[in-house]
Amino acid sequence: MDQQTIRLIRDNIKTIPDYPKSGIQFRDVTSLLEHAEAFAVSVKALMAPFKDKGVTKIVGTEARGFIFGAPVAIEMGVGFVPVRKPNKLPRETISETYELEYGMDTLELHLDAIQPGDKVLLVDDLLATGGTIEATAKLVRRMGAEVVGAAFVVSLPDIGGEKRLEQHGIPCHYLCQFEGE
Amino acid sequence: MDQQTIRLIRDNIKTIPDYPKSGIQFRDVTSLLEHAEAFAVSVKALMAPFKDKGVTKIVGTEARGFIFGAPVAIEMGVGFVPVRKPNKLPRETISETYELEYGMDTLELHLDAIQPGDKVLLVDDLLATGGTIEATAKLVRRMGAEVVGAAFVVSLPDIGGEKRLEQHGIPCHYLCQFEGE
Repeated sequence: MDQQTIRLIRDNIKTIPDYPKSGIQFRDVTSLLEHAEAFAVSVKALMAPFKDKGVTKIVGTEARGFIFGAPVAIEMGVGFVPVRKPNKLPRETISETYELEYGMDTLELHLDAIQPGDKVLLVDDLLATGGTIEATAKLVRRMGAEVVGAAFVVSLPDIGGEKRLEQHGIPCHYLCQFEGE
Repeated sequence: MDQQTIRLIRDNIKTIPDYPKSGIQFRDVTSLLEHAEAFAVSVKALMAPFKDKGVTKIVGTEARGFIFGAPVAIEMGVGFVPVRKPNKLPRETISETYELEYGMDTLELHLDAIQPGDKVLLVDDLLATGGTIEATAKLVRRMGAEVVGAAFVVSLPDIGGEKRLEQHGIPCHYLCQFEGE
């Protein structure tokens, strides 16, 4: 990725101070989506390192992971599989519960959406603690499939998500970083 | 759209009997997403009637509207604007509350995401009562923009959503129909 592309993406991500609570600088990707060119180059840049990796499915996590994951699937010519909050998927599911800063959360995957031998790329908007993507990777691996990597628009390196995911054998790719939170 | 395309799309939508409650035949588009070719032709077919309409923004409604709306935006070369449930969008929003079968729901739109003069195509997975899309159209029109139309993968004609939306001046386009519910 050249510097101009990175700048186009980074400059179109708005920072909302003290959202959702005091002291948090929220990095808002919805402003990026509104900019047609920045959105299009983001989709191409998310998939770029995985083009020759034999990816067979894109998995995106509710809800912002859908917005980037679905176009990546179309561009790569593979299927898209949503991972959702409980009781949103109508067919038989498997689930993973994981820890948040306060409390727990659960994610679900359709049992028949991923097959053994699938090579899966995970896509989400933002890498903070990595908890959501670690839980998503567990769901994919429980189906006997391989996690090829995880692609994010934004990484917040000070929170340590990249290190955590690489310790779990998930190579991370991100388009830009914001430090200091 | 030729008969083969309609069949490819329709055959990849699974029907889940008695979901989420007894007597409902749930039409599940996640099975369509998993099929790379069926997903790709759906995206092209959703946008086809609006190619020459000067569309400037795609608006998709949380959460399945994101999965179809985002790739349509990329294919059309325009920006994507998400309409979300309350307290999910970080910047200043406007909101619309509308009636469901039981109770009410509220949708929000970023105040600065749509401008007067925008020509907006609404995208969602399924047209049932049309309540969600009617509320979304109200948000877009309150910003002084034009609603060019609404595109759906599935229409359930027996529920009357198409008639309701056309009464509100929203031309509807759908890729396939399922009758009898």
